[in-house]
Amino acid sequence: MVDERETRSDTAASTRRQFLVGGAAAGVGAAVGAAVALGVNHAATASTAPGSGAAPMNGAQVVPFYGEHQAGIDTSAQAHSTLVALDLLPEVTRDGLRRLMRILTDDAARLTQGTPALADSEPEMATAPARLTVTFAFGPEFVARSGATAPAWLRPLPAFSIDQLQDAYNDGDLLIQVASDDPVTVAHTVRMLLKDSRSFATVRWQQQGFRAAYGSYRPGTTMRNLFGQVDGTSNPQPGTENFDAVVWSDRGWLAGGTSLVVRRIRMTMDTWDELDRSGREQAVGRTMSNGAPLTGTEEFDEPDFDAKTAIGFPVIPEFSHMHRARGDDPRYPTEQIFRRGYNYDLPPSGAEVSDSGLIFVSYQADVDRQYVPIQQRLADLDLLNQWTIPIGSAVFAVPPGCAEGGYIGESILA
Amino acid sequence: MVDERETRSDTAASTRRQFLVGGAAAGVGAAVGAAVALGVNHAATASTAPGSGAAPMNGAQVVPFYGEHQAGIDTSAQAHSTLVALDLLPEVTRDGLRRLMRILTDDAARLTQGTPALADSEPEMATAPARLTVTFAFGPEFVARSGATAPAWLRPLPAFSIDQLQDAYNDGDLLIQVASDDPVTVAHTVRMLLKDSRSFATVRWQQQGFRAAYGSYRPGTTMRNLFGQVDGTSNPQPGTENFDAVVWSDRGWLAGGTSLVVRRIRMTMDTWDELDRSGREQAVGRTMSNGAPLTGTEEFDEPDFDAKTAIGFPVIPEFSHMHRARGDDPRYPTEQIFRRGYNYDLPPSGAEVSDSGLIFVSYQADVDRQYVPIQQRLADLDLLNQWTIPIGSAVFAVPPGCAEGGYIGESILA
Repeated sequence: MVDERETRSDTAASTRRQFLVGGAAAGVGAAVGAAVALGVNHAATASTAPGSGAAPMNGAQVVPFYGEHQAGIDTSAQAHSTLVALDLLPEVTRDGLRRLMRILTDDAARLTQGTPALADSEPEMATAPARLTVTFAFGPEFVARSGATAPAWLRPLPAFSIDQLQDAYNDGDLLIQVASDDPVTVAHTVRMLLKDSRSFATVRWQQQGFRAAYGSYRPGTTMRNLFGQVDGTSNPQPGTENFDAVVWSDRGWLAGGTSLVVRRIRMTMDTWDELDRSGREQAVGRTMSNGAPLTGTEEFDEPDFDAKTAIGFPVIPEFSHMHRARGDDPRYPTEQIFRRGYNYDLPPSGAEVSDSGLIFVSYQADVDRQYVPIQQRLADLDLLNQWTIPIGSAVFAVPPGCAEGGYIGESILA
Repeated sequence: MVDERETRSDTAASTRRQFLVGGAAAGVGAAVGAAVALGVNHAATASTAPGSGAAPMNGAQVVPFYGEHQAGIDTSAQAHSTLVALDLLPEVTRDGLRRLMRILTDDAARLTQGTPALADSEPEMATAPARLTVTFAFGPEFVARSGATAPAWLRPLPAFSIDQLQDAYNDGDLLIQVASDDPVTVAHTVRMLLKDSRSFATVRWQQQGFRAAYGSYRPGTTMRNLFGQVDGTSNPQPGTENFDAVVWSDRGWLAGGTSLVVRRIRMTMDTWDELDRSGREQAVGRTMSNGAPLTGTEEFDEPDFDAKTAIGFPVIPEFSHMHRARGDDPRYPTEQIFRRGYNYDLPPSGAEVSDSGLIFVSYQADVDRQYVPIQQRLADLDLLNQWTIPIGSAVFAVPPGCAEGGYIGESILA
């Protein structure tokens, strides 16, 4: 039986657990089957299950699948994440969408609990979920074929002056986000889901990202991107009212869902190297050492945008990334998003010296109201733009979660 | 101070530690600096350092750099490994090679111990080595420019009938293997080493691989490749006499070194899917469930190649991968190699459905005597050939390790 002690990510996930009907929670626990679930997500609180002599194994950790919200959003970010965007085949109708989502939901519900998918060709590769989550999101075409009304923001983002978008990383009809602390688990899960999607859709693009491994840092440590920059400090914290207000929609069929923006942001590591530490800190507005605002000493200190240097310049440059991202216009207190991005680092091709960057992923209840104004400010003026190039962009609607017996997307397909 | 309790990988590594001159071992421990090294490599034996309230963090684990042998060979395989093959610039002479290897050795000695490289542009990204190792190996051109005599086997492998080699993944003058349980650490280390190589060499190819994450399985669990196949069962075990005999050379400047063969083996996942479980087991010669030989019940059972089915066929097919790889010719007891490969799984391009496979890496004292006969048998006849295509191939000489103050390659460059 799985150890049900709560951790920070489980606290957020418990809204999913509470949503479960009747004895379903116990069923999820029991479904762990072959996986010997012993501990909790986080090394700092890991301990051995009573009566067991073995140490906690992260591989056996499961994140509940069923619930009010889909998992993989308020779940403490796993080490690996692959995003796959699919294009629907022309002949797939609303009935086809329902069949597809029933199959994929069933696969995801099993695999995330450490149980092989039906007809899993490598069932042994499903036994170490390592906090596997599978999250589905719909593009405009998916929603249109379902017959539902799409939210106004479900369309490509406005063109920003900084964009150098490559069609290979844009848009898509159905997005699947597969995340786990184990890269083999991610590979097997993606493979199983794509096999079951093959009669319905083709792969449009795939993006593979990583963060620090399980066990590398204390839980709750903010990630660093490949610039070395502490990235995500001002994120709302799952489990708080603010997080819920920022992320979850309360509108129609999206109630309990959210939106997902994914931007592939190339980072030009080689010109970044030409910048000294002070230049980097001015561009970001935070120290490189611990991510503190340049007016503070600790990462989570509030920045003081009015502070001036001895010769009268702002300590935090007006055009620094942090200042521009945050904005200081009291008319827009709602401009917050929840970021859950990943680094990418591929072997460079041709004359390139690096092919590195950030798979920026953000969740917010309303793209137009929350994401676009921030991005517009950054596009207009952000010192970091000199070293970052958006090369891919897509917007998806993330439907709510479902209870056992249901399927993701039922609020528009049932 | 780092906790020095020994684990299996540390047992092998202790030959390196014993090699250290004077108080260098203590120096290595002290060099951990910012990294809070608390535990041991393996979750199953992890425990908290006396007097500390914190749980063990794998990120702080260090593998000794200095020693008789280079690290990253007898080191229990980390979750992530990147191989980078460099081509030397035409103007680089023997003196240049010495300068290059002094710089790279210094970088590796620091980074593996959780200390930033000199002039590290992101020193904060060096604090979680997570068992980082950096291993250097020389191609024919490197050895030629050093003026040393190359071993006879240091040349491209003979052409095998199954090969469909792409030049993009062949050969190279200098190979760097960077392996760690943390993918961010691998990315930063590769970046630092490439920056310091830039005046001497260009990148020829790069291959990024993964295995199960730290914490997913009990230590010592044999990896599965993306076919789901238990892969590496018959490997010699580091720390045994047999391992030493198979891996370490005793010849001239290579004494304490070895050879490295890397083969990029594409696995055609889609036709593999057409094969049922029994067909897969016949092709491999082992069960899919736990890797036991088809004549046994446990992974490490000795295969019985004489066992017959009720109707007189061998239980382990004669052309199965295991049977062909192992051979049964008593004239060649020395045909053993030590495999340390990694899975790869890239987003497919164009009409491909997958771009997955194995970065096969083997270490052996003598390529011609140990590796080539096995590969020749497999190329001639191996049921698995139907689903595997070698697309890259390279052979390198791995020089011995060095003591503090020395550098990798000094046996041909000093």
